Amino acid sequence: MAAAKSSSLSRQEIWRLFALVGACVGILLNTFQGDGAPLVASLAFSGIAFAVTFSMIRWLVPVFLKAGLKGRDMAKPRRPEIPETMGAVCAIVYLLALIFFIPFAFYKDIVAATSGGGNRDVVIEVEHVETGRMLHRFPHGKLASYLSGLLSLQCIVILGIGDDLLDIRWRHKVIIPAFGAIPMLIVYFVDFGVTQVVVPVPLQPYLGSTIDLGWLYYAYMAAVAIFCPNSINMLAGINGVEVAQSLVIAVLLIANDVLYLAPITPYPHPATDSHLFSLYFLLPFVGVSAALLCHNWYPSKVFVGDTYCYFAGMVFAVVGILGHFSKTLLLLFIPQIFNFLYSTPQLFNLIPCPRHRLPKFNSVTGLLDASVTEWTVPPSPLVATALNLLHTLRLVRVTKNEQGQIVESTNLTILNLWLVWAGPMKENQLAWSMVAVQTFCGLAGLFVRHRLALLVFQEDNLAFGSSVY
Amino acid sequence: MAAAKSSSLSRQEIWRLFALVGACVGILLNTFQGDGAPLVASLAFSGIAFAVTFSMIRWLVPVFLKAGLKGRDMAKPRRPEIPETMGAVCAIVYLLALIFFIPFAFYKDIVAATSGGGNRDVVIEVEHVETGRMLHRFPHGKLASYLSGLLSLQCIVILGIGDDLLDIRWRHKVIIPAFGAIPMLIVYFVDFGVTQVVVPVPLQPYLGSTIDLGWLYYAYMAAVAIFCPNSINMLAGINGVEVAQSLVIAVLLIANDVLYLAPITPYPHPATDSHLFSLYFLLPFVGVSAALLCHNWYPSKVFVGDTYCYFAGMVFAVVGILGHFSKTLLLLFIPQIFNFLYSTPQLFNLIPCPRHRLPKFNSVTGLLDASVTEWTVPPSPLVATALNLLHTLRLVRVTKNEQGQIVESTNLTILNLWLVWAGPMKENQLAWSMVAVQTFCGLAGLFVRHRLALLVFQEDNLAFGSSVY
Repeated sequence: MAAAKSSSLSRQEIWRLFALVGACVGILLNTFQGDGAPLVASLAFSGIAFAVTFSMIRWLVPVFLKAGLKGRDMAKPRRPEIPETMGAVCAIVYLLALIFFIPFAFYKDIVAATSGGGNRDVVIEVEHVETGRMLHRFPHGKLASYLSGLLSLQCIVILGIGDDLLDIRWRHKVIIPAFGAIPMLIVYFVDFGVTQVVVPVPLQPYLGSTIDLGWLYYAYMAAVAIFCPNSINMLAGINGVEVAQSLVIAVLLIANDVLYLAPITPYPHPATDSHLFSLYFLLPFVGVSAALLCHNWYPSKVFVGDTYCYFAGMVFAVVGILGHFSKTLLLLFIPQIFNFLYSTPQLFNLIPCPRHRLPKFNSVTGLLDASVTEWTVPPSPLVATALNLLHTLRLVRVTKNEQGQIVESTNLTILNLWLVWAGPMKENQLAWSMVAVQTFCGLAGLFVRHRLALLVFQEDNLAFGSSVY
Repeated sequence: MAAAKSSSLSRQEIWRLFALVGACVGILLNTFQGDGAPLVASLAFSGIAFAVTFSMIRWLVPVFLKAGLKGRDMAKPRRPEIPETMGAVCAIVYLLALIFFIPFAFYKDIVAATSGGGNRDVVIEVEHVETGRMLHRFPHGKLASYLSGLLSLQCIVILGIGDDLLDIRWRHKVIIPAFGAIPMLIVYFVDFGVTQVVVPVPLQPYLGSTIDLGWLYYAYMAAVAIFCPNSINMLAGINGVEVAQSLVIAVLLIANDVLYLAPITPYPHPATDSHLFSLYFLLPFVGVSAALLCHNWYPSKVFVGDTYCYFAGMVFAVVGILGHFSKTLLLLFIPQIFNFLYSTPQLFNLIPCPRHRLPKFNSVTGLLDASVTEWTVPPSPLVATALNLLHTLRLVRVTKNEQGQIVESTNLTILNLWLVWAGPMKENQLAWSMVAVQTFCGLAGLFVRHRLALLVFQEDNLAFGSSVY
């Protein structure tokens, strides 16, 4: 977070990044010995991804500005022009890191496929060369899942860049993640095809222990994949908040994954693979997002663009769906779910929805305050009653004229709500507040997941041990 | 190719596209009966991809113009501004078509994975849900290859869009396809790992019947993946020529594939799968490219952008590498290889290289003529001798001043060379000439492949039959 506005790295930054990359490369080279330790390699890749993203973003600032990929920061006194869509850089580095990681994650399979080198004969080699049918004896477990996750992420990045470049209405934007989810769902269909879910204990007398949801399960997965990216995109608008909330979610998911890999969990555990898979996707994500946050935190030097929000949300959707813990995932999205539900009256136009609903910058005080919708036509009696009720509950702030008619009401986003509760504050204070809310809700969600789930499911799968999970 | 400049489809176009889509959807629904016939499904997907691409491009013209994605057509009297980067639309439709095609190509595996539905019991289902380890019994053959091809194509599309948006120097551009090739090569390494090639007969006494190239084989594959996209990008510059050459190559590759699937080839043949795989990638490519050509042929309504050239070249690299016929592929790139070799003196700055080398438009005659490099400093004696020799061979046209010093020489591209040979001509005539050259060279290449290869290899693999291929 150097104060310098230049597009080159300072000497200190260069040394630090060099040290980081050097250490990570050392770790990577070390993993070639022994049995591989892909998790260690993943950590090393995350460090390298951090360094590359950090440097690339700095270097690309003038390039993006020149190409017209820029926007004004409206919450600063001088409204500086800064580069947009930097999330794309972050996403591309991430994708390359995950691609280079493939031989580390699937190393054992290579060895299996090329071992027995002594007894190779021409016929087998020719079969190799021509059709690869030798593979049928050496499948790669989760490789297809992994690749389908990457495909979905690439799809969302392409569509996100398109969204950032072209002027798309939000009603159309909402379905963009659906296209991104397609590769993952189709490969799931071909490669896995299981649509059975465990039934909560209170319902088991009526439905049996598992139930086949069929296409409904695909609809559910699609809904998760549409919800995660859009909900992160909705909780945006102030410096750093998109990246910070994503980082908190990612770190909490990692903590949850570690629970399954730590010695407290009996091994082998049926969910070990799923959570390793999740870590391989999340660790580099933390790397690139942390690098982006260095540039995007208040006062922002770069904007992240919708590309980042879609990308981040899709990373979570991919690990939740392919790791089979989408319910746990949704428990970490409580602030986003609240923000969505709270926004619905404006999304469905029961209350007028302006183009932007971000908090308003007061150039006199230098503080942010809740932005408002102006009621040019007074609301209908029903809406007015509802708004008055919400006002009494301090869930919205309305302003009335002398006749007692509502002329203004605050926009329905969690950022504005926080400002209604806590009063005007500086932009970074608001961002920190959101980090705190996200962390608190996420920890509460994980607690519910691991302690209270026993009330509705037969057992917490962390304490796996009996015959029926 | 409607004359209307509007961004909506004419009534006639709507009916035709509707009829096409209707027929294709009918065919698709039909493939659900019987054993699937993925090749028929692929044809139907190609038809739908044509219709979608055709309509999307038309609709997106004003959106792209508004977003500033536009360029001037310098070879027209009025230099109209038309939208750029339309290849991205074409590529995205293509990728979605290939993704939706997955369940058709890998249908049998699904059936295998979900059959035996009668004897499902709870334990197996739970294993399914948690770890998917059932998959080890139901691998998917080429699924990982297919997905890695898609990943490479998506990579190149993302990087191509970046290239079109940002101002990148050609020396940096050249390596972009290398990044695109990474996913394919890495998955090849993990999933297949065979680096042995058949040795030509004259060398077999020295090297044996096959030779393991090791990492050199990866270098070779990377070189193919770098060459194909860049060489198509180099043979660009006039309306329609990028798309037309790609279409010719694709159609010839399809003809070659069909040779292996037609009744004249004994079945089962070891290369059948590879050529089916190739068809699955090429048929939709023909669909989207044909739709793009309708808008991009002289006089162009849209430009395709570097995105298209990279994308098209990478499609060929993917089918050539993953289908194991990269040598055949290169025989179809004879004009591009010639163009590259012919350009080398300018690429390596032996002869000055201006920013653009496209043929020059003469606004008086309305014809294109070869563009020239101006020699502000006379060339060195060696270069002058070489240029004079090439001039005598009619491989370049030089202009001299009264002192006999070279002041101008034509730029070294195949387009300019053709204009040196045939004289100035209209833009569409030049594009047709290139189509003719590409077709003629490609047919000659395929003839060499299937008739003359017997001189250096033991047999043409089309006539597969003996024990050692």
